[in-house]
Amino acid sequence: MSTLKAATRDKLRGVSTATISTALFKRGFRNQCIQDVHPLNPSLGTMVGEAFTLRYIPAREDLNPITVFHDREHPQRKGIEECPPGAVFVVDSRKDPRAASAGAILVSRLMVRGVEGIVTDGGFRDAPEIAKLAIHAFHNRPSAPTNLTCHQAIDTNVPIGCGDAPVFPGDVIVGDGDGVLVIPAHLADEIADEAVEMTAFEDFVAEKVLEGRTIMGLYPPTSEQTRADFAAWRKEKKR
Amino acid sequence: MSTLKAATRDKLRGVSTATISTALFKRGFRNQCIQDVHPLNPSLGTMVGEAFTLRYIPAREDLNPITVFHDREHPQRKGIEECPPGAVFVVDSRKDPRAASAGAILVSRLMVRGVEGIVTDGGFRDAPEIAKLAIHAFHNRPSAPTNLTCHQAIDTNVPIGCGDAPVFPGDVIVGDGDGVLVIPAHLADEIADEAVEMTAFEDFVAEKVLEGRTIMGLYPPTSEQTRADFAAWRKEKKR
Amino acid sequence: MSTLKAATRDKLRGVSTATISTALFKRGFRNQCIQDVHPLNPSLGTMVGEAFTLRYIPAREDLNPITVFHDREHPQRKGIEECPPGAVFVVDSRKDPRAASAGAILVSRLMVRGVEGIVTDGGFRDAPEIAKLAIHAFHNRPSAPTNLTCHQAIDTNVPIGCGDAPVFPGDVIVGDGDGVLVIPAHLADEIADEAVEMTAFEDFVAEKVLEGRTIMGLYPPTSEQTRADFAAWRKEKKR
Amino acid sequence: MSTLKAATRDKLRGVSTATISTALFKRGFRNQCIQDVHPLNPSLGTMVGEAFTLRYIPAREDLNPITVFHDREHPQRKGIEECPPGAVFVVDSRKDPRAASAGAILVSRLMVRGVEGIVTDGGFRDAPEIAKLAIHAFHNRPSAPTNLTCHQAIDTNVPIGCGDAPVFPGDVIVGDGDGVLVIPAHLADEIADEAVEMTAFEDFVAEKVLEGRTIMGLYPPTSEQTRADFAAWRKEKKR
Amino acid sequence: MSTLKAATRDKLRGVSTATISTALFKRGFRNQCIQDVHPLNPSLGTMVGEAFTLRYIPAREDLNPITVFHDREHPQRKGIEECPPGAVFVVDSRKDPRAASAGAILVSRLMVRGVEGIVTDGGFRDAPEIAKLAIHAFHNRPSAPTNLTCHQAIDTNVPIGCGDAPVFPGDVIVGDGDGVLVIPAHLADEIADEAVEMTAFEDFVAEKVLEGRTIMGLYPPTSEQTRADFAAWRKEKKR
Amino acid sequence: MSTLKAATRDKLRGVSTATISTALFKRGFRNQCIQDVHPLNPSLGTMVGEAFTLRYIPAREDLNPITVFHDREHPQRKGIEECPPGAVFVVDSRKDPRAASAGAILVSRLMVRGVEGIVTDGGFRDAPEIAKLAIHAFHNRPSAPTNLTCHQAIDTNVPIGCGDAPVFPGDVIVGDGDGVLVIPAHLADEIADEAVEMTAFEDFVAEKVLEGRTIMGLYPPTSEQTRADFAAWRKEKKR
Repeated sequence: MSTLKAATRDKLRGVSTATISTALFKRGFRNQCIQDVHPLNPSLGTMVGEAFTLRYIPAREDLNPITVFHDREHPQRKGIEECPPGAVFVVDSRKDPRAASAGAILVSRLMVRGVEGIVTDGGFRDAPEIAKLAIHAFHNRPSAPTNLTCHQAIDTNVPIGCGDAPVFPGDVIVGDGDGVLVIPAHLADEIADEAVEMTAFEDFVAEKVLEGRTIMGLYPPTSEQTRADFAAWRKEKKR
Repeated sequence: MSTLKAATRDKLRGVSTATISTALFKRGFRNQCIQDVHPLNPSLGTMVGEAFTLRYIPAREDLNPITVFHDREHPQRKGIEECPPGAVFVVDSRKDPRAASAGAILVSRLMVRGVEGIVTDGGFRDAPEIAKLAIHAFHNRPSAPTNLTCHQAIDTNVPIGCGDAPVFPGDVIVGDGDGVLVIPAHLADEIADEAVEMTAFEDFVAEKVLEGRTIMGLYPPTSEQTRADFAAWRKEKKR
Repeated sequence: MSTLKAATRDKLRGVSTATISTALFKRGFRNQCIQDVHPLNPSLGTMVGEAFTLRYIPAREDLNPITVFHDREHPQRKGIEECPPGAVFVVDSRKDPRAASAGAILVSRLMVRGVEGIVTDGGFRDAPEIAKLAIHAFHNRPSAPTNLTCHQAIDTNVPIGCGDAPVFPGDVIVGDGDGVLVIPAHLADEIADEAVEMTAFEDFVAEKVLEGRTIMGLYPPTSEQTRADFAAWRKEKKR
Repeated sequence: MSTLKAATRDKLRGVSTATISTALFKRGFRNQCIQDVHPLNPSLGTMVGEAFTLRYIPAREDLNPITVFHDREHPQRKGIEECPPGAVFVVDSRKDPRAASAGAILVSRLMVRGVEGIVTDGGFRDAPEIAKLAIHAFHNRPSAPTNLTCHQAIDTNVPIGCGDAPVFPGDVIVGDGDGVLVIPAHLADEIADEAVEMTAFEDFVAEKVLEGRTIMGLYPPTSEQTRADFAAWRKEKKR
Repeated sequence: MSTLKAATRDKLRGVSTATISTALFKRGFRNQCIQDVHPLNPSLGTMVGEAFTLRYIPAREDLNPITVFHDREHPQRKGIEECPPGAVFVVDSRKDPRAASAGAILVSRLMVRGVEGIVTDGGFRDAPEIAKLAIHAFHNRPSAPTNLTCHQAIDTNVPIGCGDAPVFPGDVIVGDGDGVLVIPAHLADEIADEAVEMTAFEDFVAEKVLEGRTIMGLYPPTSEQTRADFAAWRKEKKR
Repeated sequence: MSTLKAATRDKLRGVSTATISTALFKRGFRNQCIQDVHPLNPSLGTMVGEAFTLRYIPAREDLNPITVFHDREHPQRKGIEECPPGAVFVVDSRKDPRAASAGAILVSRLMVRGVEGIVTDGGFRDAPEIAKLAIHAFHNRPSAPTNLTCHQAIDTNVPIGCGDAPVFPGDVIVGDGDGVLVIPAHLADEIADEAVEMTAFEDFVAEKVLEGRTIMGLYPPTSEQTRADFAAWRKEKKR
């Protein structure tokens, strides 16, 4: 279902958003962090999945009666059913948490469908209940009012802005305790590979630093010795 | 004493402010949330009661010596004694918490008289003590100074603004962990009925969603099947 | 029609809000200035009239269709027709200028009816047109949207807050280039008398100070000599 | 080319955004004002045209080299050429004026093509030059930096948010000294008709009020007499 | 009367606060500038006079009835009469301009008594009138309310803070278009001498720089040549 | 003396900072604008020169007696004499205008020495005098106090930050009414060439657009026709 390779997903689950951010910076990306969103259930570990997007615009009253949900083509409801298992549902709420972006029932449905997580730059209703679900969820703050008050779902799976970052459908979203990062889709495999390598090296460095070694020649590995030691360490650790 | 039917009160105690907010939205109400007030004692569950209001205006010095409380007709003191058991005492403090709207003694009196709760868009004195009382209380922030410094109680049980929402005497006030909502009085019974129905349906939906059913045709219940299943579920659950 | 004596009105027209503010201070009033309102037509001189009040609360949608104005009892429209000639129409807009408190047609009607002025702690629509009318008008800032969007007229001629000052119906409102002051009704005559005396005396003092006299015994007039000189000065000046 | 009827356009040019705002309110629209945009050339009179939209998202570095403009399908450039004569080009810049939404050359092109105006909730480069062009332009503030720094043009003629208002392609945009309003497309003709009627009536009322007539029965016209007088006035004035 | 030598006063009138500030810096003084005060009558030239101080504290209501002025020992009134001709009346208003520090009558009295000027880090009432008087006056902004509302005059001629600078009675106050500086009393003569020298030298330097000479050896005058040239220049210019 | 070629300087004088900003963007530079500095003498046209830098750190009292200026090696004074004719003196004042970065005498010396201009992200003393000199000067705001109070000149011609932009000695600084841009030294010639071309082309485009030509194929010039027309236009215009 997912366009994200299982191997890539596994690799990304084992690295941090900090490491990914450095790998992105190396390729010229400075603005791939969804700003000011917070996890409701940080104990679930790292969220990894390709982006499926929902775009809200300011609600126009005549187009947003409660009956809009009877329409099976309503973008929010359709999006909830179409978001692929393993994906992350990313919502452009124009950074406005005065009305909810979604509530516990829809987030439950995403969870049951195997969706990896949901991110909004607005807020969720039923935030305490969502915090008990086994699905990643990131928002700005809790928000009780019905989304229709402020937000009109307008389309799904188009490029959006979320928390000041650009998000294209299929981009790979990674979230952990530090926040949420957006990896451009075509770079996911190479970023994952590189981040795994970086993480192995960072683990090696951390170990050596704690043993008392200087960072000179070690971090980055400019000395022959460091490179030899790292090779030996990898063999020993089978990494 | 209370004009709110016992049955309606019971129904509202079993539903959430989020559900009520949707029921109000269906009838065109977008502005019934008292903004920026926080519960002092969230463990008490859901507050439900009809509004009894107190209106403050900026205090004029000559009219607000400490001796005003000697007058049995002083609106604040009279209001405390006249607020019906089961009602919610709602105070228009012009969103100004620089002086207290009330303190622990008056709130205790309300509690002993069987009043359901108190809400102000200003602040309470003795907030830590109020937080230990068995009465719902919502305010903006604690505030030590005597109310007479800033606030002149001018009348009771007139329409007021509170936290940017309109509050008419007799409106039904519901508060929970998400905040405080104002139900127009003439709609209380039907909103309660509808919210109970909505809650039953939402519980049914939540159960079905966790069992794996799609939200299409389920939420909202546009399919025959859903309506039949829900009828069966209600029968079984006796709801 | 007006409850304000013609003599009192005349006296107040000849004094400044600064002098009135001192006279009020002498009686313990520190909070009688309507804050943050600005005159649209400062060239009209000093505004003097007794307060006729209008109170707005936040608008509830079902109670504020455009048809509310068909009701001859609608508080805003009724107030416009009932405000006595010579009075000042004072509006409690909860310091919210996001929607208009009134527009040019209603202000024109007040003008034609002989009303002295209008003050709101919100904003006017058609502000440029109002600025051309021969009626005093003070507001916070121009505001285009229909009042019904935010403001529900709830009653007239009750005590209100306006710009953080208490305003009771019948209080005497005085406005000039420095702002707007509220004189409690029962003090209007004596404040007017005193302010006229103070103004005469201040003019006398200013003259004497420029002639070189010490302020000791002069300002305030604690010496016999000063009082005698002032009496002579008044006789001479016929003041 | 334009989907807006010439007659409707003419009618809207003769009414104010304040009157339109009331006509929209009557139909339940409270949020059709593009907030916080200012005209660069207010002397051009009233802007009227149907919306043609451009949507920006935050710029991703690899997708926004300067060469994007070589692509004839680049949304900004394509939009400039496709925006119909008589239309208003409305840009969703996410209320971010830190980089330009457009500059003088593109705005000149719109002008030459007969486009009615341009509105952004961001800023323009070359603002002083744009202010000299014979085309309506509204923005938040001048902004020198290249748009590619912050903004990626993503698509044209989709529904957008602009200054917190919803804008659908084909909606009728009206701007004057008070700001910019969005009339839903399907209501343009009837709002135009109604606003013309309202304006005629308001002119009649203003005249009568200045002649001394009460607003009761006049504004709104609940009396037979008013309706008859207005009919006569219209006949006389040929309006 | 004045303790400030006439010669010193004359010298200081001919130099700038900028030059004085450098002379003070040389002696270790970094904080002698009264911050954020503005001249009401900048056309009067440079103000020079020894400080006579008035200290306000926050007003306590019981100690500040209007009758305090009947007391000839009231610090504000006494100060106005005692401030020596030629001195500068410096008021510690705790940088609070919400109530007036003084008004036109008292400032007129200072003027008539031959006082050089008045400085407050608060505000003046009757500011437009004061701006027409022939006396230097510096304040933060105009302020209408009676001083007794906020300020209690507590004593005169004690050390005070004014605009974040320390002011001791007898310190020499100099004010010009750039602001107000405080010269410690015991340094007034030498600062005046030095500033005159510095000004002569700066005029000489400015002339030479414009003629093309390097600042090395010139500014400061570390070369023999510079000192010789300056001596010649002074002889020629008779400075 | 200057390392900047005369031809490059001339070219840059004829283009705008907006055009340069685009040319820099093409090469990946997004942050070369010195933020929040304003020209004192905008009528002098465009400032162009290579950067000669002065770095201030917060002043330590013992290291900043007035006698530091006797030292011919004092960085500020030395810098003033060493800054090459034609260069721009750029001062890192850590965006702190509370004390002066320089005053009129030093700026005069720069002018006489043929220096092109001076830029600080702090403030100048004697700003009104500097505004009358025939040398470009950009600062944040006027500032009277001696620089030694806050700023210690620490070295010259090292890389600095100025107004949030990086500035390396030899970088080419261009300033006009829109602000100040920093061109990395090694790119100055090519940016100048390109900006001249761009400006010629923009002038050509502006002309064609006003004549009615589409921007497609014109801006950017992707069609053969455009390139041919532009070639002809250049020949005709001799550009």
